Amino acid sequence: MDFQQLTLERASCRSYEDKAVEKTALDTILQAAAYSPSACNSQPWKFVACTDDMAKQLAPLMVVEGLSINKWANQASAFIVICETKAKLMGGLDKDSQYYAFSDIGGTAATIQYAASDLGLGSCILGSFQEKAVHDLLGIPADVKIRLIISIGYPKSDGIRPKSRKDMAEVISYNAW
Amino acid sequence: MDFQQLTLERASCRSYEDKAVEKTALDTILQAAAYSPSACNSQPWKFVACTDDMAKQLAPLMVVEGLSINKWANQASAFIVICETKAKLMGGLDKDSQYYAFSDIGGTAATIQYAASDLGLGSCILGSFQEKAVHDLLGIPADVKIRLIISIGYPKSDGIRPKSRKDMAEVISYNAW
Repeated sequence: MDFQQLTLERASCRSYEDKAVEKTALDTILQAAAYSPSACNSQPWKFVACTDDMAKQLAPLMVVEGLSINKWANQASAFIVICETKAKLMGGLDKDSQYYAFSDIGGTAATIQYAASDLGLGSCILGSFQEKAVHDLLGIPADVKIRLIISIGYPKSDGIRPKSRKDMAEVISYNAW
Repeated sequence: MDFQQLTLERASCRSYEDKAVEKTALDTILQAAAYSPSACNSQPWKFVACTDDMAKQLAPLMVVEGLSINKWANQASAFIVICETKAKLMGGLDKDSQYYAFSDIGGTAATIQYAASDLGLGSCILGSFQEKAVHDLLGIPADVKIRLIISIGYPKSDGIRPKSRKDMAEVISYNAW
C-alpha cells in the first residue's frame, strides 16, 4: 500500500489474535529497521527479537509496579527489544557521540511499525518496562541501555482507528513560527 | 510502492534539481509527520516548513563554522524544521516529561523521509545547523529547541544507492543478546 495509507493504518495495537507471527515477517521488519536513517550512519542500535516461549517470558516484564498499563502485552506473539549501542559520529560535531542515538532509535521504532502494518500486523511501542529484568532475561550487557520495546502480532481489530491529533494549524506552519 | 521497497529507496539525498517542491506534496508529507507515533500521544513537536525565498535564506544556516558538511543544502527547494515542544505524559511514569520527545521526533524525521521518497522526492536529515540564527530567522521562541531539519527536493540522481550497513548478524538477534 502507498505510504500515505500506511500512516493512517499504523496505530498502537493493544489487542492481538492468538496466532504466531511468521519468522519471515519478523526478518522483513528487522531488515527495514536496520535500513533506517541514523546520524552519520552510526547505527547505534541492536534489535533483539523475542518469539515463542521467550515472548511469553518477556510479556509480564512490560508491566511496571504502580502502573496499570501494558497488561495486554501477554497477547503479543513477538517483541523487538531495541537497545542503544555506542555511536560513532564524524569529527568536529559539537555534540556528544550519543546525542542523536535516541532520535535514531525513534526512527527505527516508527519504521518497525510501518513495516509491520504493511504486512497486516499490529504493533505498539512500549517505553515502560522492567529494564533490569529484561536485561537479565535476554543477557543484555548491563552497560547497554534498553530504549524501546515493540510488541507485534496479528491485530484483533482490522478497522482503521481515526487519528486523534492536535489541530494541524497548531503543529504545522509555513515560513515562520 | 510497498514499504519494503520504500526502505530501499529512502536515503540521504544531497543533490537536487533546481525545481520547486509543490505545496500539495509538502502538505502530504507534513500530515504524515503529524500522524507519527509519540509517547502517550503527546506530539511534542512543531513543524515549520520553509519554501521559496525562506528556503534560500535558511540554506546557508545549515553550514556550521569549522565543518565542511551541508554546503549542498543550497540546492534544496524546501526544508522542514522540527522543533521540540512541551510533552505531557500520563501520570505515574518514572521519566521526565521530555524523556521520549527526541525519540518521537526521530520517528517524525524518518516518516518525513519515507513520505518524501513515496512522492519521488529526495530528503536528508540535518542535525547540525546554526541554531540561534535559525531561531531568529523563523521567529522560533528562544525556549523551543530545534531538533532536526529535513531538506527536501527533487533528487538529481534517481538510482537506488546500495545500503551501507553493519552486518545484520551484529545488529539483529533472536531470543537472546
